[in-house]
Amino acid sequence: MRQCFHRRAVLKALFTSVASTIILSKSRALAQGDPLPSWRDGKAKQSILDFVATVTREGSPGFVPVSQRVATFDNDGTLWCEQPMYFQMLFALDRVKTMAPDHPEWKEKEPFASLLKGDVKAALAGGEPAVLKIIMATHAGMTTDEFEKIVKDWIATAKHPVTKRPLTEMVYQPMLELLTYMRASGFKTFIVSGGGIEFMRPWTEATYGVPPEQVVGSSIKTKYQMQDGKPVLVRLPEVNFIDDKAGKPVGINQHIGRRPIAAFGNSDGDRQMLEYAAGAPGLHLCLLVHHDDASREFAYGAESKIGTFSEELMSEANQKGWTVISMKNDWKRIFTNPLDVHP
Amino acid sequence: MRQCFHRRAVLKALFTSVASTIILSKSRALAQGDPLPSWRDGKAKQSILDFVATVTREGSPGFVPVSQRVATFDNDGTLWCEQPMYFQMLFALDRVKTMAPDHPEWKEKEPFASLLKGDVKAALAGGEPAVLKIIMATHAGMTTDEFEKIVKDWIATAKHPVTKRPLTEMVYQPMLELLTYMRASGFKTFIVSGGGIEFMRPWTEATYGVPPEQVVGSSIKTKYQMQDGKPVLVRLPEVNFIDDKAGKPVGINQHIGRRPIAAFGNSDGDRQMLEYAAGAPGLHLCLLVHHDDASREFAYGAESKIGTFSEELMSEANQKGWTVISMKNDWKRIFTNPLDVHP
Repeated sequence: MRQCFHRRAVLKALFTSVASTIILSKSRALAQGDPLPSWRDGKAKQSILDFVATVTREGSPGFVPVSQRVATFDNDGTLWCEQPMYFQMLFALDRVKTMAPDHPEWKEKEPFASLLKGDVKAALAGGEPAVLKIIMATHAGMTTDEFEKIVKDWIATAKHPVTKRPLTEMVYQPMLELLTYMRASGFKTFIVSGGGIEFMRPWTEATYGVPPEQVVGSSIKTKYQMQDGKPVLVRLPEVNFIDDKAGKPVGINQHIGRRPIAAFGNSDGDRQMLEYAAGAPGLHLCLLVHHDDASREFAYGAESKIGTFSEELMSEANQKGWTVISMKNDWKRIFTNPLDVHP
Repeated sequence: MRQCFHRRAVLKALFTSVASTIILSKSRALAQGDPLPSWRDGKAKQSILDFVATVTREGSPGFVPVSQRVATFDNDGTLWCEQPMYFQMLFALDRVKTMAPDHPEWKEKEPFASLLKGDVKAALAGGEPAVLKIIMATHAGMTTDEFEKIVKDWIATAKHPVTKRPLTEMVYQPMLELLTYMRASGFKTFIVSGGGIEFMRPWTEATYGVPPEQVVGSSIKTKYQMQDGKPVLVRLPEVNFIDDKAGKPVGINQHIGRRPIAAFGNSDGDRQMLEYAAGAPGLHLCLLVHHDDASREFAYGAESKIGTFSEELMSEANQKGWTVISMKNDWKRIFTNPLDVHP
């Protein structure tokens, strides 16, 4: 695999070098001029370029001052992969295994017993209550500083169960370019995810360039206290806020206090966030990533349990003129890792 | 008053002009070099200058990268005046009067009946439940967009009951300089107030240079819904979060996700915020504004019902080396309005 990658990289470099000699001026113009090189030319890419050009053109009727250029991005399935299960669930399952020696009672207690036997399906058969039990057991009971360290240590080595790549390489290269492009165009970029806010913050800055204070997510309650004379926040096994569906506009208002004019999602969980952005008084850009590339990523939609993209959402998108990105057709490259560059 | 101000301004301008001719080089150096011109030289000012110099000096052991330069500021009594009552309470009382024609039942119902008769003391005699009734009646039941407009319209004309000045001129000039200085030194400045988050956001950017997404405060719940086909958030008469005392570190973690290294307050309500900042692993700056200037502002402390500065807080500050600012001695000027410049 590694050798193959090297050979391809060398060939690619060679090809690029020859090509650039032949069509030097054109390739230079393209390289300098295209802020979204991993996006194929087409309706989706053009809708982004047109929107940004209009809101940043001073004097134009669509001009938006920098202070109001707020863009919100869902995370799971929009910025990084969410299959075969949410990566935060991978974290929770790993935590259960790590913590098991301190919890002998888990051997007899569901959903932990099944998990420890390696039967994830049986463990999650209990639905939301089972998931909550796993989340609370693994996400609460420590200080926020301790939890941050646990997440940082985990993400540094965690691998995707199918591709075996680091999870931070399972992020979408076209979306990284989009984040950079929006920021270069004066936008403040926020993550607005159903995932845990404190699960994301330890790595979003390095991975996406989004600092902790620009991450909005679901949370559990915390309590301020002195521990051995040190002021800490202890994470409690109690839901504080669910940042999903109708919760997303609520979370956006709570954290950002402005209505976004650009919103990016991939599922029914993002519907209200996109509607909310579409309710902005001026121009807006609403965009949905459609997972339709079974060979380079995963293909799923209305039938999926994770990242459901329902027929209703698709019809709302079409009716309202939201941009639907076909990963298969609109993206030259899926992941940041160059292995999956398709010609 | 106005004439007097004009004469003083002219005299001052003249004096400045003459003085600057005489000691040109020195005054130039001072004007260019002093980021806190309304602060008198002394321990308080020096503690700020030293702290900022150390954390921004690359290569020094106290150096802090820009991304971790987080400073949090209380609002009432720290950035603007809070006497004779919190300005948000002035807003609520004005709202009760404005809304009264639509609420004939208030004539017979406390705390509204007393308020409408002009007896604020009797209305607030009911304590916290009475205050909550007034807040919910005046702060809930509309969309967030509508509430923003109500606050903006109100703050544009609201006057202080004693000085009769616009409330946005009742902000402390030395703290404005401090906000600017911290930002110029790479700090991200946040407001962390017990006041309502949506009461502050409509005017903090123009007044303090702090954008809505950097305001943390108390909040009521909101609910996402479609109103005549428009996506809105409706404000509900239900407490969501109280950002005071032990709630401040919780709010800071929820919104910012990093521990501040500089925190500024003025009362027992800020104690835990300062403790939390003091728990940062490296250098930190904790600072309390002490209202001890009866002639230029108000003098109050442990005995006050608003902005209580208890003996315990003072002794904790002294013991931990927090900076206590004497408004009387450390500030040349109190308010932004030049009328109160004392020689």
